[in-house]
Amino acid sequence: MFRTNTCGELTQANINEKVTLSGWVSTLRDKGFMVWIDLRDRYGITQIILDEDRSSKELFETARKLGREFVIQVSGTVIERASKNPNIPTGEIEILADSITILNESALPPFTIDDNTDGGEDIRMKYRYLDIRRNPVKNKLIFRSKVAQEVRKYLDAQDFVEVETPVLIKSTPEGARDFVVPSRMNPGEFYALPQSPQTFKQLLMVGGLDKYFQIVKCFRDEDLRADRQPEFTQIDCEMSFVEQEDIMNVFEGLAKHLLHTFKGLEFGDFPRMTFADAMRRYGNDKPDIRFGMEFGEITDLAKGHDFKIFDEQELIVGIAAEGCNSYTRKDIDKLIEWVQRPQIAATGLVWVRCNEDGTYKSSVDKFYTQEDLAAWAERMNAKAGDLLLVMSGNTNKVRAQLSALRMEIAERLGLRKPDEFAPLWVVDFPLLEWDEESERYHAMHHPFTSPKPEDMELIDSNPGEVRANAYDLVLNGNEIGGGSIRIFDKNIQARMFELLGFTAEQAEAQFGFLMNAFKYGAPPHGGLAFGFDRFVSILDGSETIRDYIAFPKNNSGRDVMIDAPAAIDQTQMDELFIQSNVVEK
Amino acid sequence: MFRTNTCGELTQANINEKVTLSGWVSTLRDKGFMVWIDLRDRYGITQIILDEDRSSKELFETARKLGREFVIQVSGTVIERASKNPNIPTGEIEILADSITILNESALPPFTIDDNTDGGEDIRMKYRYLDIRRNPVKNKLIFRSKVAQEVRKYLDAQDFVEVETPVLIKSTPEGARDFVVPSRMNPGEFYALPQSPQTFKQLLMVGGLDKYFQIVKCFRDEDLRADRQPEFTQIDCEMSFVEQEDIMNVFEGLAKHLLHTFKGLEFGDFPRMTFADAMRRYGNDKPDIRFGMEFGEITDLAKGHDFKIFDEQELIVGIAAEGCNSYTRKDIDKLIEWVQRPQIAATGLVWVRCNEDGTYKSSVDKFYTQEDLAAWAERMNAKAGDLLLVMSGNTNKVRAQLSALRMEIAERLGLRKPDEFAPLWVVDFPLLEWDEESERYHAMHHPFTSPKPEDMELIDSNPGEVRANAYDLVLNGNEIGGGSIRIFDKNIQARMFELLGFTAEQAEAQFGFLMNAFKYGAPPHGGLAFGFDRFVSILDGSETIRDYIAFPKNNSGRDVMIDAPAAIDQTQMDELFIQSNVVEK
Repeated sequence: MFRTNTCGELTQANINEKVTLSGWVSTLRDKGFMVWIDLRDRYGITQIILDEDRSSKELFETARKLGREFVIQVSGTVIERASKNPNIPTGEIEILADSITILNESALPPFTIDDNTDGGEDIRMKYRYLDIRRNPVKNKLIFRSKVAQEVRKYLDAQDFVEVETPVLIKSTPEGARDFVVPSRMNPGEFYALPQSPQTFKQLLMVGGLDKYFQIVKCFRDEDLRADRQPEFTQIDCEMSFVEQEDIMNVFEGLAKHLLHTFKGLEFGDFPRMTFADAMRRYGNDKPDIRFGMEFGEITDLAKGHDFKIFDEQELIVGIAAEGCNSYTRKDIDKLIEWVQRPQIAATGLVWVRCNEDGTYKSSVDKFYTQEDLAAWAERMNAKAGDLLLVMSGNTNKVRAQLSALRMEIAERLGLRKPDEFAPLWVVDFPLLEWDEESERYHAMHHPFTSPKPEDMELIDSNPGEVRANAYDLVLNGNEIGGGSIRIFDKNIQARMFELLGFTAEQAEAQFGFLMNAFKYGAPPHGGLAFGFDRFVSILDGSETIRDYIAFPKNNSGRDVMIDAPAAIDQTQMDELFIQSNVVEK
Repeated sequence: MFRTNTCGELTQANINEKVTLSGWVSTLRDKGFMVWIDLRDRYGITQIILDEDRSSKELFETARKLGREFVIQVSGTVIERASKNPNIPTGEIEILADSITILNESALPPFTIDDNTDGGEDIRMKYRYLDIRRNPVKNKLIFRSKVAQEVRKYLDAQDFVEVETPVLIKSTPEGARDFVVPSRMNPGEFYALPQSPQTFKQLLMVGGLDKYFQIVKCFRDEDLRADRQPEFTQIDCEMSFVEQEDIMNVFEGLAKHLLHTFKGLEFGDFPRMTFADAMRRYGNDKPDIRFGMEFGEITDLAKGHDFKIFDEQELIVGIAAEGCNSYTRKDIDKLIEWVQRPQIAATGLVWVRCNEDGTYKSSVDKFYTQEDLAAWAERMNAKAGDLLLVMSGNTNKVRAQLSALRMEIAERLGLRKPDEFAPLWVVDFPLLEWDEESERYHAMHHPFTSPKPEDMELIDSNPGEVRANAYDLVLNGNEIGGGSIRIFDKNIQARMFELLGFTAEQAEAQFGFLMNAFKYGAPPHGGLAFGFDRFVSILDGSETIRDYIAFPKNNSGRDVMIDAPAAIDQTQMDELFIQSNVVEK
């Protein structure tokens, strides 16, 4: 028996009890005549005490020689602490040790195992197993586990069946790049890892399972960014005999349940916004509505005033940065520099100061009167003390740029509060988006998303205008979930593949099994998938999903702890009927 | 709204209610003046009725034209049924339809969607989405989901944290063959898919997580048998500061909880047996103890009687097949043929009839007296009416052969009852097993399993005799779980790798991260993994794990439904820096 109790549970109620604890030496203070050890395990910290009077000499000397992160087992008596620590549950007691066993020694860790460590990101990733000993990391993993458990309870109670769909599937040309797995038993052929269980969950609906969910790993071989991992986790759901409203209700219910359970928050109906409105009002299909700063379009007002730059543009639009009239000229110059960074790539920024006295001062005073600027300010809902920031250009581009600026200003003004939650449904997405590079339409959601019946007449004449039965759940400016009502008619599905540039043969080769399944009584169905890593992080007030993944990969897709990927043996490749194109280093 | 109710819930309590149901046309009986439809969804079957008197002509004609597996929406009134069906919950009512909408048509399915279908295994796998509509398949998937949910509840309540470990890891030479994934971002390098999260869960223990579990997909690229799939699911668990007894207690608790929840069974302490005893008594390390038929060794009795075949053998051992004295000579010949099949490859079978009158009649009467045979019978616990079946040969081989025969006889005698459950812990496994082919020791469990401290002195002199802190949970003759207390001392781990034939460099390259982690205060830890697919199937009284997997692969590792694996594009291979050795077909 390694322990009678954990390091997080002993209190005054246990005084005089003989106990045994096991854990790590977190800190050791040696005053010569007395030694205190903070013994740490997952559950907390308990103070161990030894002194010259009450402890044997041998034991005392053993204790003094313990190093940080040694694993020890301590037996002793719970006693009341002289100077209590009200910050921890065990702060009223300490253990007067009468034996200490060293279970394992430890080299000096490469960084301190503290809430505020001295270790940088890289070293903590390499020694992730030590990083996990730190409360902030450990608690995030425990939080993730609790959320997963609660999701399952909620969906199970609503008769959803969790079905494990296969990981070794087939590569498809649509969507992101696949990871592939060469097959030993089928020479020259490859499995692919799923980007999502999309087709399988649809087949489960054809199979009559009615309500499916799965918390499941998915894989995308894309270039990585801070918030993207090659393997990530989805809460994947699908329902039969439902309309968009049914699905939104169920998963709004789930989101409310989680916000209530973990944040103690109550919500009425989540607000809804069309994609078109979201783009117009926030320049973004996942607007953060914890704050206003809505876009004001002034194209009609700003053109025709001899200001060439504006006259040439498709859209002129601005926001009112609250109280930012206090910005100095230098501050504004920095903002202009910021929007010109390659990530934003804006050409410029027009500014208008809304002075307290009701006058305006702008970078374009040569072209616009006080009345002109007042009209702008009104469109942007500005008040005295605000600073208008105006951008112009191609509609899609300028909206994206101004949206990035809006988020940046909000960040600076402290408007993105981690303990405030603003959910939002974005609906009525376009079915297709035109891709300039490949010169064809791509599915905005995925090729199985159904068009709105009332827009079906546009599918031949103006496919870009067709709206989809698709919906995203947005939380604090992050898309945490998205889904759609699916096509369940084989002819519409075939037409969709055609729109996406598939020949009939290609569609058959790639998705023949799905279209074949649709011949045998496919029910109306639809679903939704939450990005679980992101949902968990946002729920916990963070936007760094990597922190919520036990063993994340870096931006080159490497696990620096185990040093993967790695070279494999030639014999292994031979067995798989593949060769490497890379000359041996 | 597609439905007000499901097809499984309406009863007399709902009489006169206006309802709408959606589902599949399971059967349609057309009597000319009246039409009955069995409407099916996941939840059950409800009878729909239309007749010439009460239904409009148009509706009546629509109904008559419905085909099997059409998806329809029916509105109507709940009425009492004339001839009630007590076998289904909805058997007291039917729906008098007043409208029917065809939601989707169906081609004639390639097999009947019935509990007893006319479809063979191959066709059902190709159309797995139709197979899932059948109750026996659907119910197995729902059962699996319920068991997973219950496992999670149980472990969550005991403070286990579910942590998702990575799927893209590193290939290791130990164990089975890995599936590998070429890396696009790290040219010439490969990820491997995990055979189990073994090292990661140990790192989580080093990380202080204390109690970990995960229900997780694992992957082995081995030749497949009926009960083996390239991807399978484990309940993977690990605990810190525990001894073997602690772990066995926790997971015996879990097994009892599941047997209670799903089978209503109560168990006392599970029996335990050493590996050595299991081999001696049952010839097998996963004995089915629902029945006796224990081995009786008669080497000492049977040698030295001028029966050459026996005199040359290492072990002579038999079982008493209860009541099988009734077997004809022809029956026995068939049994001899059975043990000579390539799968068993026994050279022969000596038989002894235990006659009702106390006499014996055997195939070796020339060499043995009645007293000799009586002594054999006693060793095998035989009684009058039994048939002794005796085999001889190399100890390991003959035990395996007789074990197979024992199971076969039990199957024939109906002793392997699916509703009877006999759990058993097998303990004290050898640490290592000698592999003739590679002429080196292999880890019997895995290279991280700790030797028993009391056997440590044998590790240099006689490593084959060292026992491990390893344990298997056996249920009805199937290993459903296995685990061990791990090595947590870096020196012992290094010695273990050495025993397994690794050079220090190889050990460092493959497991350096783990041995490095052990430098920083690794706690004592151990764990266990259940084979979830198998556990679920056995709990449900079946041994066919494939039935409990939504989309299984066939014996060539193919998913015949989606036709994977498949060829991929040359550009895809180029991006991954690989080429195929297979010339294009």
